[in-house]
Amino acid sequence: MTDLKALQTTLLFTEEDIKALRQSKAILADQTDAILDVWYGFVASTPELVHFFSDAKTGRPDGAYLEAVRKRFALWVLDTADANYDQKWLDWQYEIGLRHNRLKKNKTDRVPSVAQVNFRYIPALTIPVTTTLKPFLAKKDASAADVEKMHTAWVKAVLMQSILWSQPYIKDGEF
Amino acid sequence: MTDLKALQTTLLFTEEDIKALRQSKAILADQTDAILDVWYGFVASTPELVHFFSDAKTGRPDGAYLEAVRKRFALWVLDTADANYDQKWLDWQYEIGLRHNRLKKNKTDRVPSVAQVNFRYIPALTIPVTTTLKPFLAKKDASAADVEKMHTAWVKAVLMQSILWSQPYIKDGEF
Repeated sequence: MTDLKALQTTLLFTEEDIKALRQSKAILADQTDAILDVWYGFVASTPELVHFFSDAKTGRPDGAYLEAVRKRFALWVLDTADANYDQKWLDWQYEIGLRHNRLKKNKTDRVPSVAQVNFRYIPALTIPVTTTLKPFLAKKDASAADVEKMHTAWVKAVLMQSILWSQPYIKDGEF
Repeated sequence: MTDLKALQTTLLFTEEDIKALRQSKAILADQTDAILDVWYGFVASTPELVHFFSDAKTGRPDGAYLEAVRKRFALWVLDTADANYDQKWLDWQYEIGLRHNRLKKNKTDRVPSVAQVNFRYIPALTIPVTTTLKPFLAKKDASAADVEKMHTAWVKAVLMQSILWSQPYIKDGEF
């Protein structure tokens, strides 16, 4: 928890960002399906990304796997907007990291997919995730300034999570 | 270079971003000293960060080391704005990563500083670096829309570089 605080300081992540994330929850709550349609459209049109949902043998995208992850992704949007950074949340981030890494990928859904999501895509996905989200933040009655604040808070929050998810990929003692 | 292209696709990094970065060069070129004053002010006021410039024995910040890095940081701003992504550039990013990692930190300046910059701070610094830069992008005669475009391009470019710099920290075969 102390290291998380230091990471938040480095990310310029403040109480204002927590407020903005929580403000975004009510705006996004009934839009997660539409957000996921855009998000899955991006993944489907990017061979480098759809690869991570493919059957390791045939190379074909696994529809059932994509659907199972989609359900968790919707919950993740709301969980990120909750911005409750306690030890339980931190443990869960570590678990999410493991599920991207070769240590635990495919186990939850018992799928014969490729062995890992390569590290480099994890922090990179901060950009398409938060870019996808921005128009949805603007769809309700928030002011343009509030939309900017919520978007900035989301960029920081997703980058922070992607850093935490990277932990299983890092050599011992270097995280 | 193929993997770099795939990473850029994931980052939604396009020709528009390259144009915006190059537009920023003329704006930033005569402001690097002022930018570095703000940047070093942030580092100096953040114990978690100034730690990486400290003498490993005394724990005190090493002024000569800070000054040597400052000169390279100014060059890095202009290099990032150049946005010339060739093999030479890619090799140089790997070298920058090594110089943050325990494999090569302190060697260039022959300083008795702490052994490494921990991984987690590297992608995180994308936020303060690009937030510091934004007011400087607005100080010349670029339109508000162009300032937004340049800032967005900088966020993508710095995140991309921080991912490349992370390579020496990643377990074999997981990058």
